[in-house]
Amino acid sequence: MDDMTSPNQTANSPVPDRRRFLKRGVALGAALATASHSASSLAQPAPDDPSKRLGGPIRPYGERSRFEQATREKAIVSKTDEVGGSFTPLGENVGIITPSSLHFEVYRAGVPEIDPRSHRLLIHGMVGRPVVLTMDDIRRLPSVSRILFLECQGNSMTEWQGPRARTVQGTHGATSCSEWTGVSLALLLREVGVQSGARWIVAESADGSGAERSIPLAKAMDDVLVAYAQNGEALRPENGYPVRLIVPGWTGNINIKWLRRIKVVERAYLTRMETVGQPTLMPDGAARQLQFVIEAKSVITFPSGGQRLSGPGAYEVTGLAWTGRGLVRRVEISTDGGASWQDATLQAPILPLAHTRFRLPWRWDGREAVLQSRCTDETGYRQPTLSDLVKVRGVNSLYFNNAIQSWKVATDGSVHNVHV
Amino acid sequence: MDDMTSPNQTANSPVPDRRRFLKRGVALGAALATASHSASSLAQPAPDDPSKRLGGPIRPYGERSRFEQATREKAIVSKTDEVGGSFTPLGENVGIITPSSLHFEVYRAGVPEIDPRSHRLLIHGMVGRPVVLTMDDIRRLPSVSRILFLECQGNSMTEWQGPRARTVQGTHGATSCSEWTGVSLALLLREVGVQSGARWIVAESADGSGAERSIPLAKAMDDVLVAYAQNGEALRPENGYPVRLIVPGWTGNINIKWLRRIKVVERAYLTRMETVGQPTLMPDGAARQLQFVIEAKSVITFPSGGQRLSGPGAYEVTGLAWTGRGLVRRVEISTDGGASWQDATLQAPILPLAHTRFRLPWRWDGREAVLQSRCTDETGYRQPTLSDLVKVRGVNSLYFNNAIQSWKVATDGSVHNVHV
Repeated sequence: MDDMTSPNQTANSPVPDRRRFLKRGVALGAALATASHSASSLAQPAPDDPSKRLGGPIRPYGERSRFEQATREKAIVSKTDEVGGSFTPLGENVGIITPSSLHFEVYRAGVPEIDPRSHRLLIHGMVGRPVVLTMDDIRRLPSVSRILFLECQGNSMTEWQGPRARTVQGTHGATSCSEWTGVSLALLLREVGVQSGARWIVAESADGSGAERSIPLAKAMDDVLVAYAQNGEALRPENGYPVRLIVPGWTGNINIKWLRRIKVVERAYLTRMETVGQPTLMPDGAARQLQFVIEAKSVITFPSGGQRLSGPGAYEVTGLAWTGRGLVRRVEISTDGGASWQDATLQAPILPLAHTRFRLPWRWDGREAVLQSRCTDETGYRQPTLSDLVKVRGVNSLYFNNAIQSWKVATDGSVHNVHV
Repeated sequence: MDDMTSPNQTANSPVPDRRRFLKRGVALGAALATASHSASSLAQPAPDDPSKRLGGPIRPYGERSRFEQATREKAIVSKTDEVGGSFTPLGENVGIITPSSLHFEVYRAGVPEIDPRSHRLLIHGMVGRPVVLTMDDIRRLPSVSRILFLECQGNSMTEWQGPRARTVQGTHGATSCSEWTGVSLALLLREVGVQSGARWIVAESADGSGAERSIPLAKAMDDVLVAYAQNGEALRPENGYPVRLIVPGWTGNINIKWLRRIKVVERAYLTRMETVGQPTLMPDGAARQLQFVIEAKSVITFPSGGQRLSGPGAYEVTGLAWTGRGLVRRVEISTDGGASWQDATLQAPILPLAHTRFRLPWRWDGREAVLQSRCTDETGYRQPTLSDLVKVRGVNSLYFNNAIQSWKVATDGSVHNVHV
């Protein structure tokens, strides 16, 4: 046979129905015709032919190749190293799992070093009997694992008044996705016995920031986790080691890290973070407090700001979509600044409250193009344009910016953050 | 209200219907009554109260806490450091994703250091036009991500003639599960044009071992990936950086790492690994060659060999199940050496050809107990006992041991590998 028949394409199929992809675009063998490669800051070359040499020994706890250089860069800078935000390099990651070493991080008092043998979790307030749990107590209980996104409500806050960040790491890197494992908070609360009249919990961190957030009891009894593991192993220090809350689909800072106290109470505490700290400012000067749910959002990670296409031809446009309301149902892509839209393929498995990877083949003709993605979730809600969002929220609300992002591909192949 | 009603339990629900779990077993607050904790080899204590101190700065590429010490230990030892196997500490991992730093590894010539800028993949043989691909060529193509287990056919090879390994890392640690991303091999083969009469491919590694494996063309055209990423970022050096094959559900060593050549051929090559290297020896002296598929298998990771229960009471038995035939349909657990069985809960999402996490609450009465798990896959095939397996295969077949594993909990709480 000269060629094989391609199967029907499904979201599950690893064999896209796009025969002759290489012929249409990628210059196969181009590498043979040219000896030059992009300049590198890495001084030492690897052995010319690794098959002629003995390799190195294995490491008990592995590290990445020295040729890989992606880092979480500071996207929120302050006067001290211990306050700020470092974002995930979404433009360099693939799939839906974020490497734990590159999970985004917002920090207000640095990263505490906590000995799990001395750490305690107190559950008290309007309960039948308060308890203090050791990490051994917590790890002994029935556990749950879920793949979930986590997004800071400040993600994309640079973008309200114009294209400020250069790369997708800067515009959208305060979202990440991990497999979290822990104990159901509902199980713990049922065990301590919630008193009549209780309607909220207040969770507090053990770091120097004294972070406290109020969470409705109904959510606490639903799907919240007291989590001690991330992607199969213990939480990383930056992500709450040895224990944190995971509040599926809700804004990042309510997922209290370095968790040390949970108090069951009658009313929300209106803590510093919930009042002067992080309300969403509306055009009339009012402040939305206690806003929790992350609404449907998506972003193209390739091609994205700071990247460069090597020339006209075939590419795969890809990116991430997510929603705090459950499942992503649809992602559409425009390559003409929103004039027309095509459905992207959603990569299986599509999991509730997790990043969903989308893909679409695209042939770049070498002319200027503006790429956008928009997401629709299972409630039917569709990600808005920035101008639609600004009509309701003005340009000072800082948080919860889920507007459609635009990337302009210039005629030289360079990609730029633009507002259209 | 004094307590809240628990919802119906489903595989998706994070709230197991086991009210009063803590009262039945875990000594809540026990930590308050005792000041002593297990001895540690870690010399320096963490700050007594992290909330009174400023934490450290964030790291651009994160690391785990110094209090976490799980490592992949050598489970196959040879005369030189560059030949052997280092296994995943399954007893210390949770969820289904294996941390990339702890993915098992079998190595025959050490870990090569390969510069992705100079690495090339040649596809040749019975094709319309041979091609040489750079890593940039490969990464530009349409991609696929899948969460898949990878098991070495030598996993559990210590266990044919008696309980030899002490821990689940030793008995079963040559299986791991990652989100792999790469290009469909079928897409590449369609592009180069497979000639009439071709029935196999031969894949070759770029390391010093010269590993070569033959793969039927039908599988190559089905779901094989030319993978360059693992858990969101580039492959780790030990796992084939910069590019490897991923052959879903098939034995580990066919997933050629450091992939440099794919040749399309008429017949299997019967390479060293396929003949004298790794056939499965049958009782009559015959050797099964070219055995590919991993059959249904499971193992309890807690409680498992080398662990210790602190005393009678409530525990969660948990472990992993997998099958190269598709989906895990059922996992049963026995706590009496196979006399009786109960269905475990399978943690959603249950993904084809991936590790599936199972869980079952268990109350240990303090008497000797023998724990076992057995898995049934979507074809209806059920994991065999060791004696049933030995009846067919004898005790010299070395590879593809998928027998039921037994862990004995002694009256002092210590857990041991036993054959019953």
